[in-house]
Amino acid sequence: MNVEIVTIGDELLIGQVVDTNSAWMGDTLNKAGFAVKQITSVSDNEGRIIEALEKAKQNADIILITGGLGPTKDDITKVSLCKFFNTHLVFSDEAYAQVSHFFTLRGSDVSDVNKLQAMLPANCHVLHNKVGTAPGMWFNTDGKIFVSMPGVPYEMKLLMTDEVLPRLKNIFATPAILHKTILTQGIGESVIAEKIADIEDALPPYIKLAYLPAVASVRLRLTGISNNTDLENELNTLVADIEARIKPYVYGYDNDTLPAVVGRLLKQKQQTITLAESCTGGYIAHLLTSVPGSSAYFKGSVIAYAYEVKEDMLEVDKQVLQTKGAVSEEVVVQMATQARQVFKSDYALAVSGIAGPDGGTAEKPVGTVWISLAYEGGTVAKRFKFGTDRNRNIEATALTALHLLFSKLIAV
Amino acid sequence: MNVEIVTIGDELLIGQVVDTNSAWMGDTLNKAGFAVKQITSVSDNEGRIIEALEKAKQNADIILITGGLGPTKDDITKVSLCKFFNTHLVFSDEAYAQVSHFFTLRGSDVSDVNKLQAMLPANCHVLHNKVGTAPGMWFNTDGKIFVSMPGVPYEMKLLMTDEVLPRLKNIFATPAILHKTILTQGIGESVIAEKIADIEDALPPYIKLAYLPAVASVRLRLTGISNNTDLENELNTLVADIEARIKPYVYGYDNDTLPAVVGRLLKQKQQTITLAESCTGGYIAHLLTSVPGSSAYFKGSVIAYAYEVKEDMLEVDKQVLQTKGAVSEEVVVQMATQARQVFKSDYALAVSGIAGPDGGTAEKPVGTVWISLAYEGGTVAKRFKFGTDRNRNIEATALTALHLLFSKLIAV
Repeated sequence: MNVEIVTIGDELLIGQVVDTNSAWMGDTLNKAGFAVKQITSVSDNEGRIIEALEKAKQNADIILITGGLGPTKDDITKVSLCKFFNTHLVFSDEAYAQVSHFFTLRGSDVSDVNKLQAMLPANCHVLHNKVGTAPGMWFNTDGKIFVSMPGVPYEMKLLMTDEVLPRLKNIFATPAILHKTILTQGIGESVIAEKIADIEDALPPYIKLAYLPAVASVRLRLTGISNNTDLENELNTLVADIEARIKPYVYGYDNDTLPAVVGRLLKQKQQTITLAESCTGGYIAHLLTSVPGSSAYFKGSVIAYAYEVKEDMLEVDKQVLQTKGAVSEEVVVQMATQARQVFKSDYALAVSGIAGPDGGTAEKPVGTVWISLAYEGGTVAKRFKFGTDRNRNIEATALTALHLLFSKLIAV
Repeated sequence: MNVEIVTIGDELLIGQVVDTNSAWMGDTLNKAGFAVKQITSVSDNEGRIIEALEKAKQNADIILITGGLGPTKDDITKVSLCKFFNTHLVFSDEAYAQVSHFFTLRGSDVSDVNKLQAMLPANCHVLHNKVGTAPGMWFNTDGKIFVSMPGVPYEMKLLMTDEVLPRLKNIFATPAILHKTILTQGIGESVIAEKIADIEDALPPYIKLAYLPAVASVRLRLTGISNNTDLENELNTLVADIEARIKPYVYGYDNDTLPAVVGRLLKQKQQTITLAESCTGGYIAHLLTSVPGSSAYFKGSVIAYAYEVKEDMLEVDKQVLQTKGAVSEEVVVQMATQARQVFKSDYALAVSGIAGPDGGTAEKPVGTVWISLAYEGGTVAKRFKFGTDRNRNIEATALTALHLLFSKLIAV
């Protein structure tokens, strides 16, 4: 069952908005056994929209459309759908009841602009959008399914989950598609490729291996498509074989994230973590606290951007700060040790570095970072040299710091 | 001059990677006067790749391709390009020299896998990738330009900036495309639409207005395409007219961000900000410190996740914490006041709330947040009720807190 996603909106083509909807839909559809074959993004232009829909109709069985359903004049998806289906807009009592219910709940009246949301193509079946004012629309024409949804991610996701996927599963029998992903940090793509070359060469035709590099990490994704084998076991065996070759670098699987994995380990051990962040400016704390339930093991953090904060809040020795500089082994070790004491935690991570773009010297160029971990009975500190881009340096530092904690947690 | 972007990679279609490359390319091309008409994402499949290239060739003058150039077996873009151009791979001495230089700089040898990076389609012109091992490729065929680049964002961006854009500008004369964007917070899309309906109705055909809603904010983007009018002045007048209707909600223009705008104001006034974050867990600090040069006005922060941290580091009254709860006006005001004193800053923002998914009560459901700002001579505190999604609540809280600071900075 081939799916094509068509995303509509000038903002996507001029890069004002990143199309995160397609990735979410691709992931969700894939897990349900539907294969997305193409994603096409076009502008708010009738000709372009209709052309994209025509091509999608040739290639796919299911065409999922997002965007261009707002109450404002730049949104022309509904009009374009009417032309494409050779129909016209009609006032839908059902859609109007949903829109007015939405406003009643919020204690306000339906404005004239929002009344227009109830004008829909005559051939559509209305899908209830519980969290927004633009209804979803379901079309079944010439044996093809078309679904039009708002571009607001929150609204699209609820419509997909509550309305679209259950209907699609009812209609189509889906083949078995399975993914297994191994998450690594601290090893390069080509080094992995050499270590597992023989395993890769011996893969059966229905299993594919992909390397997905990101900042400071590489993910290895195995995809199997087959109804005739014991796919799950076969993939699990492959995961074990690959992992045996690169064991020290593997921190998780599938949708794991390093902050979630670290959090799980801390929870199991009933231990706590605190932070003293300088160059990462709160990003490590943000990664940790993005995980639901993180208050069980994350107690708090001092973000010490200014010298005086390092002195006052973390009691870093003034003379060491002046002679060695804030970006030094001595200072980062003091930061970690003090944070652990002040917050009374089992572990404390500290980072100090030069994120850039300014502040580098010949001895300590932009991208120089010291990371320290304090634990019961000791500390460890390491120096790293990342790149020149501020936000990449912040991200690489944060993930490397969390990986240092991960290595300690699995070692003890 | 029409551009199509073709992004290649299974990871895009199964949603394991969000396609941020296209947005960056769209933005960069647009500013250079090139209009992106379509973005197509296809899997690592020879047939799909060739079909996408053929369709792009029909519709566009310039086809920019990313992805599928890694050294590993799942990357088949080069082989597909050979089929598409009816040519074959040859060993490029030029590309090999670049790849070996890359490894020499890093003190290692070229592995066998990486030697394959120098095998390129016979008809391509090599573009030097200074930060990676996969060269860019430039093709000029039947009056159409094709460029193939790696999918790693960092490598693609440098190739675009250093190689591709200068060449495109040399070849094509570009029309005038101008964008002006007004950034608002605290007002809804449809309220804005009603307030400026007459301005929108009177827009000339060569100027379009788009509403771009995001978490806690709406951006209004005016796009003008014309070589015959004084477009810049005309757009500036429209911006002023629109802004006059919604003045209190406008915090910036174009590529401004709220953290950058707030930072600029603090720098101008030579004032400083510190934070006491609870439910946002470091995200406000992260937003502020993502801005280069933020150390001039951001001194530090205490992330007080645990009750005891609120007591110990911020000296929040234990009894108030127990009787009123951490999510209360009294506590958040004490957090802001204490942070301002401890860090010796001009302003301090404090937030305390229930991000979710757990921890809500009937009286204080998930999404309940108190925000306080302490300044010389006083404090202000406000209660908000956001939604049920943890990460949306964190983002909305952070932006709302920064907007509170913004309002104070422009009022004094």
